[in-house]
Amino acid sequence: MTMEERRRAAVKEMMKIAGEIYDDLDNSRIPELEIPSRTKSNIAFDERHRVWKYGRNKSTRSAVSLPGAYMLLRTVYTIDFIKKMIEQHKSSTLREMYYISEGWSEGKFSSQGDSDRLAEDLEILTKKLREDMGLRPEEDGARVMGDLSVEEITRKGEKRRIHCQDDVGDSGYSIPYNVEREKLKIRDTNAKLVIAIETGGMFDRLVENGFDEEKNAILVHLKGQPARSTRRFIKRINEEKNLPVIVFTDGDPWSYRIFASVAYGAIKTAHISEYLATPSAEFLGITPSDILNYELPTDDLTNEDISALKSELSDPRFHDEFWESEIKLQLKMKKKSEQQALAKYGLDYVTDTYLPEKLAEKGYET
Amino acid sequence: MTMEERRRAAVKEMMKIAGEIYDDLDNSRIPELEIPSRTKSNIAFDERHRVWKYGRNKSTRSAVSLPGAYMLLRTVYTIDFIKKMIEQHKSSTLREMYYISEGWSEGKFSSQGDSDRLAEDLEILTKKLREDMGLRPEEDGARVMGDLSVEEITRKGEKRRIHCQDDVGDSGYSIPYNVEREKLKIRDTNAKLVIAIETGGMFDRLVENGFDEEKNAILVHLKGQPARSTRRFIKRINEEKNLPVIVFTDGDPWSYRIFASVAYGAIKTAHISEYLATPSAEFLGITPSDILNYELPTDDLTNEDISALKSELSDPRFHDEFWESEIKLQLKMKKKSEQQALAKYGLDYVTDTYLPEKLAEKGYET
Repeated sequence: MTMEERRRAAVKEMMKIAGEIYDDLDNSRIPELEIPSRTKSNIAFDERHRVWKYGRNKSTRSAVSLPGAYMLLRTVYTIDFIKKMIEQHKSSTLREMYYISEGWSEGKFSSQGDSDRLAEDLEILTKKLREDMGLRPEEDGARVMGDLSVEEITRKGEKRRIHCQDDVGDSGYSIPYNVEREKLKIRDTNAKLVIAIETGGMFDRLVENGFDEEKNAILVHLKGQPARSTRRFIKRINEEKNLPVIVFTDGDPWSYRIFASVAYGAIKTAHISEYLATPSAEFLGITPSDILNYELPTDDLTNEDISALKSELSDPRFHDEFWESEIKLQLKMKKKSEQQALAKYGLDYVTDTYLPEKLAEKGYET
Repeated sequence: MTMEERRRAAVKEMMKIAGEIYDDLDNSRIPELEIPSRTKSNIAFDERHRVWKYGRNKSTRSAVSLPGAYMLLRTVYTIDFIKKMIEQHKSSTLREMYYISEGWSEGKFSSQGDSDRLAEDLEILTKKLREDMGLRPEEDGARVMGDLSVEEITRKGEKRRIHCQDDVGDSGYSIPYNVEREKLKIRDTNAKLVIAIETGGMFDRLVENGFDEEKNAILVHLKGQPARSTRRFIKRINEEKNLPVIVFTDGDPWSYRIFASVAYGAIKTAHISEYLATPSAEFLGITPSDILNYELPTDDLTNEDISALKSELSDPRFHDEFWESEIKLQLKMKKKSEQQALAKYGLDYVTDTYLPEKLAEKGYET
């Protein structure tokens, strides 16, 4: 399918929703839409894709109430906007869509949170991706450095082949917001694994130390909680090139959630976990055990950190021996640490000692 | 000068500081260092460079007090660290330097704020750039799209020529953290102006709409408060290619500070304003007048916004007719707006109407 075909297919599915609302009204039925409950308690493991997805709990948006009726009105306006935008070969940021609703009188969104949620609801209802609807986030592309060739179809429709070491500056290749096959093809690689890295400082350290070349690794900067395009990009390399994925983050509960969103699927995007999550991705560190074993500099856990760790103990995605023992250890230690704390032992310690030791533990030759 | 020569020159200047401290101790004098006061009240207009720099107020760090003595100890440790790092052809993030101080016993920094400030103090004392000392921030490179060729010296010492339209994906070229001549050369361009843009969403809008090609403009994403490398990059294009610079931001006091840091110099980096600021840069909008003239969607000013606007009225950099009348207008309206609010009139309004009108007002052919 070309990008245009994907977009037309998304419009077709959206028009079905509009059609159902029309038919309901035409037959004097009160229109309503059913959406899965989007909460931590309503995610379940999907055996087929090995990722976490929404379970069976549903919530209904019905025109029987005024807020429900407004929500349906906004849905129809949004479908109309997306349809026209796609006809004009355009795309829009989520923030632009929010401002465009200024012209929808009673259908105007009250906040961008509302319009973002509606975009996700439309994905759930149509089983199409937001990217196919021409909607994109504000997020900047994360960066990639490693022996990997990609082929982008540029805004002018030209094919452009880029090698993520030889054709880029030291800042690496920036992942575009749409990384579906129609936009981006994963071409040749001789790399042996992918290392996804939370912070820019650590990404730059591994680049400066030449870890991508020395260990034949594709380095991907996660930039904190990773954008959808970053997660999709990682998953595609994993599947299409059969490369293992290692996640290297700070040692705190927020970083474990970053790992969870890469490996298991995020709660907000559980309806498309099979597109975004890489079930075989492994967490390398910084683990609470690393903090002890490597005697890393630490900060005290804040009350928010402690609540987040406790919440992870009741999160089904973290129900395994490794996470339970590590999280309990951290709650006992009351300490957290950061990737860059490894600099305590010098700038090369992470590439000469820590990463080789940890990768060997996981069975990777280094 | 090559990068190595610049770095050795920086070390030489730093060794002079260490030498002075040694001589003081050797001659039974109490060692001290004098640094300009780094406050809004101590910046003054430098007629020669047409930028704002530190004035004559000084503060003294003297070993006569315990905090002053610790500060001098940390200074000497830091100089030693930088010297060794440069001998090994390495660089370090500011965060890594903070963690490395873990090994300095009594010389350990108490927070990263302390170590960042010391790096700036060393710039002031040595009249060299932090980049020459191999110190870099965490910030990601901002993105560039336009008819401009740059030549980077990569980490392996190879020359790499990159055209910021033809050799990059739709995310553009990422500016590296060091953009000094030894690392990056500004080569050919046929562009007529540079447009520096605050938000990623608006940068992507101008890219999608082909504004760089249609108007022959180099688009630079400021990413909020711009990194030093982004400001330096803009200044170098302005000077070396003699291109005008237009700044396009949201319409709130924080955005005016972004413009000030591009055009006048930032308070934190006033000691190197002549490297970073582009005095001829012009502010395009969103102005408070635009909010009225274009009837843009608005949000109410918060108390923090109001304080920031009032603080700008007493900031010498904003002492001119334009800023005073616009800031007073905004305080009267009590409203602010965003670049992307222009989407109220459709996705093309900014490139078809707003930018051409505003550029024509400023005397640019469009």
